[in-house]
Amino acid sequence: MVIEKDDRLILVTNDDGLYAAGLKTLLEVMEEFGKVVLVSTTESMSGMSQALTVKTPLRVKLLEETDRHRIYACNGTPTDIVKLSVNQLLERKPDFVVSGINHGSNSSVSVLYSGTMAAAIEGCLYGITSVGFSLNNFSPAADFSACSKYIRIVMKIIIKEALPQGVCLNVNIPKLPESEIKGIRVCRQSKGNWKEEFEKRKDPMGKTYYWLTGIYNNHEPDAEDTDEWALEHNYVSLVPVSVDMTAHWYINELKSKTVNV
Amino acid sequence: MVIEKDDRLILVTNDDGLYAAGLKTLLEVMEEFGKVVLVSTTESMSGMSQALTVKTPLRVKLLEETDRHRIYACNGTPTDIVKLSVNQLLERKPDFVVSGINHGSNSSVSVLYSGTMAAAIEGCLYGITSVGFSLNNFSPAADFSACSKYIRIVMKIIIKEALPQGVCLNVNIPKLPESEIKGIRVCRQSKGNWKEEFEKRKDPMGKTYYWLTGIYNNHEPDAEDTDEWALEHNYVSLVPVSVDMTAHWYINELKSKTVNV
Repeated sequence: MVIEKDDRLILVTNDDGLYAAGLKTLLEVMEEFGKVVLVSTTESMSGMSQALTVKTPLRVKLLEETDRHRIYACNGTPTDIVKLSVNQLLERKPDFVVSGINHGSNSSVSVLYSGTMAAAIEGCLYGITSVGFSLNNFSPAADFSACSKYIRIVMKIIIKEALPQGVCLNVNIPKLPESEIKGIRVCRQSKGNWKEEFEKRKDPMGKTYYWLTGIYNNHEPDAEDTDEWALEHNYVSLVPVSVDMTAHWYINELKSKTVNV
Repeated sequence: MVIEKDDRLILVTNDDGLYAAGLKTLLEVMEEFGKVVLVSTTESMSGMSQALTVKTPLRVKLLEETDRHRIYACNGTPTDIVKLSVNQLLERKPDFVVSGINHGSNSSVSVLYSGTMAAAIEGCLYGITSVGFSLNNFSPAADFSACSKYIRIVMKIIIKEALPQGVCLNVNIPKLPESEIKGIRVCRQSKGNWKEEFEKRKDPMGKTYYWLTGIYNNHEPDAEDTDEWALEHNYVSLVPVSVDMTAHWYINELKSKTVNV
């Protein structure tokens, strides 16, 4: 693949590994918009958040090249992959970082744990317009056919005008046939948390170990401006995500507390 | 250790492993404030962000118990540790989650990659007043003696009045003797990013691999209200961190872009 000066260059990655159906769908749609360099995690990296690989070296392998795309596999996390791609693999800075389509939603606080969204956040930190797509269906055999329409709409929005510095998009798509999806809603991140229920087991040596499981606990199920509400009411949710985590609204109050301690 | 109804119960964790000098200092100071359950990562988990362990089971070992503390080691990430402690190890929900003292600062965008801050964020998601402490010194032999004074001040602030829901604190301490630290500044997260410079090497089989390195790039070195400025000017930085990553200020503009796409 030759990347010309006027080509739109799109870096595609994910956290479900090379054989994920969601990644295949995303590659197909992105080829409509430009030249694609796809760098997948070698294996599943779900729940890896913004983790960096610092104790082991990164390796990357070119698997396939056509006139429209190049496909690599990398043993790192999604965040590693964006860093390595921008710095080592790509001829130039990509115009877009597009991550997903994740098998499972990344709405509400899942944005904090998501490897898919970490890749978009990392692209955003490099000043690249970035977006993560997720389907609200954890199945490896999930049907991604309804996603393409909404991915095209989101791409058209961010092609028309770049996102502001420090903002990327978290797009979640309900588990429905396209005909039942009502459209896109711009939302805020819903307040909630995961109630962890660990499975406590004994190994063959009689020693205790734990598996992490968990149930999502929505703190505001009736709030119509949230991503959880949108998904539950058959809308695609679109949340602008800030890489600035400061609680700006609390700064003045906190200042007053630090006086005369 | 018996935890009475009126005891202040403090969960202490870190991401530098059990033998980190910063963890030892934090334990000592926290024993002044209450009964401490310390659950350390077995080994270093630096740069693990909010990562969850989903592919391997978690194990935890009680190492030491006195009338003031219990010490465990766990093979999980800092986020796993907070979840497992709250759900399985502790008799009741702790009053505080306190993480660190990290060897190395977690100012600016490092909050996104930090395992130390991930533990505080996880505590915050459980509705527990939480804080992460970091010293701007990566050395395993770093001198933590100046930290105790400022940890006490921060604890007094959050004991006097709990933090609001969804907000935790990111405290960074400059690498200076106590006499040279000018005080505490409440700040916002500085805008910046890591410029990655990978070291590309060949293994004995002639195959390429990469080590992640990096240099911090401050986008606003003159902004006096940032954590980077505070640290560089000999102040302890105190940033209120929000678990809500929504770019609220951009929602209306984004809504206007989704019409008639």
